[in-house]
Amino acid sequence: MLKKYYINTDAQGLYNITSYVRQAVNESGVNSGIAVVFCPHTTAAITINENADPDVQTDLLFALDKTYPDRPQFRHAEGNSSAHLRSSCVGASETIIIDDGSMVLGMWQGIYFAEFDGPRQRHFFVKVIKG
Amino acid sequence: MLKKYYINTDAQGLYNITSYVRQAVNESGVNSGIAVVFCPHTTAAITINENADPDVQTDLLFALDKTYPDRPQFRHAEGNSSAHLRSSCVGASETIIIDDGSMVLGMWQGIYFAEFDGPRQRHFFVKVIKG
Amino acid sequence: MLKKYYINTDAQGLYNITSYVRQAVNESGVNSGIAVVFCPHTTAAITINENADPDVQTDLLFALDKTYPDRPQFRHAEGNSSAHLRSSCVGASETIIIDDGSMVLGMWQGIYFAEFDGPRQRHFFVKVIKG
Repeated sequence: MLKKYYINTDAQGLYNITSYVRQAVNESGVNSGIAVVFCPHTTAAITINENADPDVQTDLLFALDKTYPDRPQFRHAEGNSSAHLRSSCVGASETIIIDDGSMVLGMWQGIYFAEFDGPRQRHFFVKVIKG
Repeated sequence: MLKKYYINTDAQGLYNITSYVRQAVNESGVNSGIAVVFCPHTTAAITINENADPDVQTDLLFALDKTYPDRPQFRHAEGNSSAHLRSSCVGASETIIIDDGSMVLGMWQGIYFAEFDGPRQRHFFVKVIKG
Repeated sequence: MLKKYYINTDAQGLYNITSYVRQAVNESGVNSGIAVVFCPHTTAAITINENADPDVQTDLLFALDKTYPDRPQFRHAEGNSSAHLRSSCVGASETIIIDDGSMVLGMWQGIYFAEFDGPRQRHFFVKVIKG
């Protein structure tokens, strides 16, 4: 089963998509397997991080800006090369284990769509594999 | 089959877990498929890197400290935001191919639990999928 | 089905391997599932990024050099510790969803073998899982 979800991003940020992935797992009826969450955009990514203190997300975005800044030497005319870089370093997908019908996530883990170049209408896919 | 392994980390570092993953693959009896190694913590990660010269691990940890430093602007009260960042940049999981009953790893590759915020008791999961 | 492909890299760079992965998916005959693209080298990686403007690749390589530079404190005698670091931060594999017999990639996404330490003869694996 392949599910496609749309989200509207209003700025760069981390958008919690855990409930969408959970819904896809539930609808699949798969008891044991994996779920692959995939981002089809090259200036965004999927990541897993803390779902409790929102300061963690603020700090992550701040540090990503510092670690992967815009650089005057960049040639790409769209001006979003640092977003492309963040996409490759954070990564296009996450794979989550399913056991006993549920995602095996740590207590503090949430799944996030990382927007590095919005606002945009974006989408992502969830593929559930039984096994 | 889902396996859960515990490790005690005594400090930040790379802990070689290749033998645990190999054991999970062997116990699964799966001849062809994949193994997903998943870290359920948001200040740690799973990575694959050189298993020979221990200087590589020393250099990796040194460079991670320089690349993703603690920053005075961080707000998260626990003071470990750089560990959260490393977790997202190194990544929560690795997927390894299984062929002929064994992991398909390069000669120099080992699988590591990357502790960015210890000492802690940690755990990780290995899920084997036949296919 | 496991496929192994060889590439010769003439320098550090991003080598587009999308057509190899597509070939592996086609040959597998799998209509629905995932493809895991795996790099068995510890100074290279697999990533997904823009396949259109070649300036994006130039900018990515430039920024990777700036973000993960060689450092005088590195001890590893081969002198390629920054390549090892990039390997762990970009990551050893990508997982791509297969639907209706084709890879589910965004319009601008290509799959790249990232060479951080060439020139070398390299190889990578593609494993297709039905599900």
